Amino acid sequence: MGGQSFDAFGICCPVPLSQHTAVQMAHGGGGRLMRELIEGLFLPILGSCEPGRGTNPTPPHDSAVLELDGVRLAFTTDSFVVSPLVFPGGDIGKLAVYGTVNDLAMAGAKPLWLSASFVLEEGFAMETLRRVVQSMREAADAAGVRIVTGDTKVVDRGKGDGVFINTAGIGRIPPGVDVSPLRVAPGDAIVLSGDLGRHGIAVMSLREGLHFEGAPESDCAPLADMVQSLLGAGADLHCLRDLTRGGLAAALNEIAADAGVGMELEEAAIRVSEPVAAACELLGLDPLYVANEGRFIAILPAELAARAVEVLRLHHAGREAGVIGHVTREHPGTVELRSPLGGARIVDFLSGEQMPRIC
Amino acid sequence: MGGQSFDAFGICCPVPLSQHTAVQMAHGGGGRLMRELIEGLFLPILGSCEPGRGTNPTPPHDSAVLELDGVRLAFTTDSFVVSPLVFPGGDIGKLAVYGTVNDLAMAGAKPLWLSASFVLEEGFAMETLRRVVQSMREAADAAGVRIVTGDTKVVDRGKGDGVFINTAGIGRIPPGVDVSPLRVAPGDAIVLSGDLGRHGIAVMSLREGLHFEGAPESDCAPLADMVQSLLGAGADLHCLRDLTRGGLAAALNEIAADAGVGMELEEAAIRVSEPVAAACELLGLDPLYVANEGRFIAILPAELAARAVEVLRLHHAGREAGVIGHVTREHPGTVELRSPLGGARIVDFLSGEQMPRIC
Repeated sequence: MGGQSFDAFGICCPVPLSQHTAVQMAHGGGGRLMRELIEGLFLPILGSCEPGRGTNPTPPHDSAVLELDGVRLAFTTDSFVVSPLVFPGGDIGKLAVYGTVNDLAMAGAKPLWLSASFVLEEGFAMETLRRVVQSMREAADAAGVRIVTGDTKVVDRGKGDGVFINTAGIGRIPPGVDVSPLRVAPGDAIVLSGDLGRHGIAVMSLREGLHFEGAPESDCAPLADMVQSLLGAGADLHCLRDLTRGGLAAALNEIAADAGVGMELEEAAIRVSEPVAAACELLGLDPLYVANEGRFIAILPAELAARAVEVLRLHHAGREAGVIGHVTREHPGTVELRSPLGGARIVDFLSGEQMPRIC
Repeated sequence: MGGQSFDAFGICCPVPLSQHTAVQMAHGGGGRLMRELIEGLFLPILGSCEPGRGTNPTPPHDSAVLELDGVRLAFTTDSFVVSPLVFPGGDIGKLAVYGTVNDLAMAGAKPLWLSASFVLEEGFAMETLRRVVQSMREAADAAGVRIVTGDTKVVDRGKGDGVFINTAGIGRIPPGVDVSPLRVAPGDAIVLSGDLGRHGIAVMSLREGLHFEGAPESDCAPLADMVQSLLGAGADLHCLRDLTRGGLAAALNEIAADAGVGMELEEAAIRVSEPVAAACELLGLDPLYVANEGRFIAILPAELAARAVEVLRLHHAGREAGVIGHVTREHPGTVELRSPLGGARIVDFLSGEQMPRIC
């Protein structure tokens, strides 16, 4: 859930842009306010609106899907402003590569090429820059993509924050692959690729000066190989989404709204490690909303779910994959969580900002 | 001269990164220091280095040239940090679209799709954002490209500067087109598409609070149509470069160094408007180094130059096109300027920063 496809999403009637006359931190947080900014400002102006087409036939992906001479390309972009720049398990460079690789993967694409653009703050340590760029190279090699073009800008001291990195990426969608929220149907299974919250807690713990036994590292990882394995095993993937800003809750709410379906999750099936759970309690965070950088959900026909879980578990980052719920015809647009004792609560979009500058 | 292709440029022996242990404003200025940063840090780490290949067989473009099933794509990226955000003749949004469109055009490509990514500062006025995004849409329509995907991040107040915009772009290179510094040969003519310095002076005058009669507007314009017209007229374009950061001087010095040729320019043939010349004198700037956003040079066989100038002059932004010099076998890597009285001076890279945050 990094970028946003404008083209595939031609809203013709702007959503009112709430009351805010100035940008709030929460406009970048992955929750309701960010969605309002995208749907109320960016999409009405930049989207390809065809008058009379009414509402949108192809809801948003993280990547745009483009066609050139019969070849289908995925194209996506993400800017990275994570603070601090280096955190347990990764740094802004690794994040910038995997983030974009993963957005391509979530369109079913095999990532091919990345661009990398740097906004540097005057006075930023050259040695830190070198380490970050080295980390990008290693991540690109690990993900099997090449960084082929770039740009550098410098802003005055106090007008930036060390370094911001943008990556854009191009991938190729194999013939026959059709991944889209529109294909999500009642009865589909929801598969989650691993435990939740490691990235967000790794960054937040560092920022809050929290030290504890077994503190988690970021789950930051490339996801394209797992997706290609699923496709190779014949899984008809209806929808994919990585769980970055806004976490599992934002991803599922977006899909439920776009597909016009409900979702029911089994709380007991959602894995959260001991240290992440402890840190969430300490920091007052809900792991369902905490950002991940190496986790995704796959929504697919229920009869294929067991096989998909098997395939995911063969991958290091998918060891803890499992079915966490299913898609319903009831309560469209709403995600429900059932507790082990049978209670149910609604998991809504977050209005405010849970975790600023997490990616 | 916006971005930088990493892939096409496999330097195997890092250039020493001068003495700087911290980023200076001039590292983003388009002159010698920026080239050192790219060649000393980004390329050795990110470039596709094949050991034993020695020096670089394909010098840099502003775009990477990629092949997919026989289709050649150009791919490029640029971040925009211009200050102020709105200036006579344009704003950061228009600049962000035309800048990337022009980098694609300089590879001989027809621009197709752009991404747009925003780093917003907390507190930034929503109305200004709306105007900037509207301006991007208008520029995209004028240039015949679609903005198909995007991203939004928000940073805390005082950690950004209103808005930074990244655009990346994909274009298609027509069959048979081969634009590269390596094709530049002694005897080639150097054609300049118009007068120099309007963009840089428009921004700097505003920043310095300079008001004067006939103050210039930015020359900000899309260049792809002009390039396609040249190709359509059968011009065998050896090399193209738009004259952004570092101006005409930086562009020609880069090409001379990469192609291993010399260049001789006729000062009398280089047009600088009256108000730009006056402002340059007042601000202590040399128009050869001032940034443009709608000017480029085409290097091509001398016998085709007159026809190329004719074709360019049919376009509004090419009305003042002309031949300004030629490529020589002598003094490789050096650009010489001949005055009307016969004197000659060397036009070198600028070491420091002539104009910070001009794009």
